Amino acid sequence: MATEKAKIEVYWGSGSPFAWRALLALELKKLSYESRLLEFSKGDVKTPEYLALNPRGKVPTLRHGDVAVRESLAILAYLERAFPQPAIFGETPAETGRIWQTIAEFTSYLGGPLDRVVRPLVFGKVAEKADDIREAAKAAHEEFAVLDRTLAGSRWLAGARISAADIAVYPFLKLLLRVAARDEAKPLDLGFLPFEARYPKLAGWMKGVETIPGYARTYPPHWK
Amino acid sequence: MATEKAKIEVYWGSGSPFAWRALLALELKKLSYESRLLEFSKGDVKTPEYLALNPRGKVPTLRHGDVAVRESLAILAYLERAFPQPAIFGETPAETGRIWQTIAEFTSYLGGPLDRVVRPLVFGKVAEKADDIREAAKAAHEEFAVLDRTLAGSRWLAGARISAADIAVYPFLKLLLRVAARDEAKPLDLGFLPFEARYPKLAGWMKGVETIPGYARTYPPHWK
Repeated sequence: MATEKAKIEVYWGSGSPFAWRALLALELKKLSYESRLLEFSKGDVKTPEYLALNPRGKVPTLRHGDVAVRESLAILAYLERAFPQPAIFGETPAETGRIWQTIAEFTSYLGGPLDRVVRPLVFGKVAEKADDIREAAKAAHEEFAVLDRTLAGSRWLAGARISAADIAVYPFLKLLLRVAARDEAKPLDLGFLPFEARYPKLAGWMKGVETIPGYARTYPPHWK
Repeated sequence: MATEKAKIEVYWGSGSPFAWRALLALELKKLSYESRLLEFSKGDVKTPEYLALNPRGKVPTLRHGDVAVRESLAILAYLERAFPQPAIFGETPAETGRIWQTIAEFTSYLGGPLDRVVRPLVFGKVAEKADDIREAAKAAHEEFAVLDRTLAGSRWLAGARISAADIAVYPFLKLLLRVAARDEAKPLDLGFLPFEARYPKLAGWMKGVETIPGYARTYPPHWK
């Protein structure tokens, strides 16, 4: 059994939005952890040792004593149970429901479209995927409008306090904005930039997430 | 604020696997609830009253006193927080992590392929989608093999006790098996049936889920 005092290790990859969620949760909970930065290009996620821990060869993986947890949202839920304070899934049932609702809506309606925009831009498939990128961008804009309206009445995505909802969504937006600024994206005219002008509330919220103490430790090294 | 004693209402649609999760959770927690069965064909999910509760016009929605929660996994998490016993997200951090990990892996790797098999069969698009259905079926088979192996060492998907993982996954398999038995599916030769022969452990596990007291109340009325 892991005890609260057991060592925490987090296996992650630079620029993986899923891994970034885990790092932000560790920082929000002010936990000490050992960072195990894996290099995709060196095959670090496909070694027998890592596959024993994470058979799909994905990041992140959390180790805490003899417990290993994979899948970013499971890591967030695990950390909440093992280290309840400060809470990132709310203090009341209504808060918990709203936080998971926000995460589920991201997963169901926004995560997919963002992936369809980002992936071809990262992997140099813009020409053959241009129509799908544009269609996905349209869906993303609709969801951004929903989030922007939410933030008109609330400092954070799921209430008055920063929560798992904010750190579950933030890395994907940050990745989109980085990729949308590339030269290859410009001819597509996706309409995300300048983000501050298009979605001022969302842009302000992102700046808020960036004030988490320890945020700098979570920033993808190869983006610097 | 909702109190434990407040009335619970669940808005659902017959055959929606997402809605089925919420009903199974209510039964597992032995909660009394009022069933609000919406008819998709009558436009019940698009009325102004329902859209006020669930702006996307989706099922399920849970009401508990003055709290409304949408998105099935958020409803499960809400119910756990409002009514902790019997626990469906585990009694220890390790159990909680494993349960959410199983749910996240379903969402990330199996839910999509199952949707790509089921949707064209339900909506009469088999001819134009045959290649994609076959590709998705292959991905589903790979994930079924993973689940079948898990069940070789464990009575339930995420440990020794029935949990949110079981009820999050079960409705989607049940829907697949129903649709795979249709005449239109036969020429595709997807290899799911007879399920008991292909995946004996998974088939046995499904029978286990069907022993939940109150299961009959959750069964899609139009499937009877």
